[in-house]
Amino acid sequence: MGEFDLKRYLSERKLLVDTALEECFPVPAGLEKRLLEAVRYSLFAGGKRLRPILCMAACEVVGGDLKTVMPVACALEMIHTYSLIHDDLPAMDNDDYRRGKLTNHKVFGEATAILAGDALLTEAFDFIAKAGSNGKVSPDRVLRVVGLIVKAAGYRGMIAGQVIDLESETRSVDLATVEYMHIHKTGALLSASLEAGAILGGGSEEQVGSLQRYGHHLGLAFQITDDLLDVEGDVQLMGKTPGSDAARNKKTYPALLGVTGSREAAREHVEQALDALASFDDSAGPLRSVARYLLVRKA
Amino acid sequence: MGEFDLKRYLSERKLLVDTALEECFPVPAGLEKRLLEAVRYSLFAGGKRLRPILCMAACEVVGGDLKTVMPVACALEMIHTYSLIHDDLPAMDNDDYRRGKLTNHKVFGEATAILAGDALLTEAFDFIAKAGSNGKVSPDRVLRVVGLIVKAAGYRGMIAGQVIDLESETRSVDLATVEYMHIHKTGALLSASLEAGAILGGGSEEQVGSLQRYGHHLGLAFQITDDLLDVEGDVQLMGKTPGSDAARNKKTYPALLGVTGSREAAREHVEQALDALASFDDSAGPLRSVARYLLVRKA
Repeated sequence: MGEFDLKRYLSERKLLVDTALEECFPVPAGLEKRLLEAVRYSLFAGGKRLRPILCMAACEVVGGDLKTVMPVACALEMIHTYSLIHDDLPAMDNDDYRRGKLTNHKVFGEATAILAGDALLTEAFDFIAKAGSNGKVSPDRVLRVVGLIVKAAGYRGMIAGQVIDLESETRSVDLATVEYMHIHKTGALLSASLEAGAILGGGSEEQVGSLQRYGHHLGLAFQITDDLLDVEGDVQLMGKTPGSDAARNKKTYPALLGVTGSREAAREHVEQALDALASFDDSAGPLRSVARYLLVRKA
Repeated sequence: MGEFDLKRYLSERKLLVDTALEECFPVPAGLEKRLLEAVRYSLFAGGKRLRPILCMAACEVVGGDLKTVMPVACALEMIHTYSLIHDDLPAMDNDDYRRGKLTNHKVFGEATAILAGDALLTEAFDFIAKAGSNGKVSPDRVLRVVGLIVKAAGYRGMIAGQVIDLESETRSVDLATVEYMHIHKTGALLSASLEAGAILGGGSEEQVGSLQRYGHHLGLAFQITDDLLDVEGDVQLMGKTPGSDAARNKKTYPALLGVTGSREAAREHVEQALDALASFDDSAGPLRSVARYLLVRKA
């Protein structure tokens, strides 16, 4: 077997996700034209589609059919996109740019940006429900997926992370709080993406648990390397200015552990992510490759 | 049979809903304390619980068990509450008071208010999914309810209504647009509440359709009488200042049809709502009584 071409895999998968997302919202028209333009603006603003890709990979690794998870893969990207739109709002992180493009409220205004986020979050649950309509997955499994995605996206997950993130700008926080924040803000939805893929793909409880654990460590490694890039990264590759986290008093891993300590922590989480995949065969190649990539990422 | 005591019925049902909602969110503690305080502040700010009560009534009228719909009844109130929190934001309607109390963002700040709304919307879908976990309703029916509630709450329903509402403050709109706005902004979720109750209660397609039609006309009658109260109402009973709609250039029914024309329109919609219930027996008494009440409401 030749070396796995991760770059090609990710770009092929991204294309599958983009194509599926294209069909999720109608072409803007009528009285809601501007709202749908705002929804599509952020949905197609150059996201890497990491959550859908992980969801698809988890489905395949347990022997499931990709078609089964596509609606949920789309839903995960909608939820991720809604969270970015709301996080960027003036009352929140007050960001003018994301991935080198103006943020949603800078283009469409705050009211439309809030509603576009609300629309993406709402519609996501229709797509999850749709996963039960092709007759390949039992509705029971779909309802379980609704529950775990709510837990990951709501006040027990992503929203809790954002609450802590906002508070941490104004007060001193320790490593445990930073970790708690990342596990909730980023890790929860990443883990849920893998869990959902495994459940819909028909995985055993053990397999679902292993993939959830992989997601947990991948999420932390992802965040630590993200913080490292903010210290060391190239503005051209990243689409944001290095040092911007420090300038806003965001508590990052390098600030708490130093650059060397952060690199070490990232390496440990990648190893634990790989350990979690130990029981899977070569079909877990893409997931292993994604984890290893975090240690050499440049953007 | 004595005359049906609507006031007593509504207050008993409100108590059932309040008790069920009490258990939906944990007592605020930990790092998310403030967020959960904000969620509970608006969830228990004196709402009439109309959507849950209609959902429960629709379930009973088709012979279903109240326990079956309680999680969905709670979810409908969460979605309604999220929409009020976001609508009140400075970027939207910029309201300082609702039902005589400070709005969420005036107490907790904009960031927390946005996240509290997001949390309520997200969590609502967990409660809907839970309706499938007691073994009394088939998961297929629950997934259908997810789909119809998304349609009513999202960009094809409530959010579309809010978009038009915001736009109508700055431009001239006709009666058809005002009607379109209300059908989406208020009517869609009211109808969905009745539809969901009928589906979960095991109603036939014909019964589901009848209750949906009742909800459509009830929603319009409700909105027209709401507009009439803004012209004629008593500030003490209403908790908001009469004339406030006109002052903000909101296009109301009295502004478009006159007071007499609006009263006539409300009466017609109440009659059509009652017509939609023609095939039901006395068990539809509460729903008939709610519709008739709109013609004499003082708040």
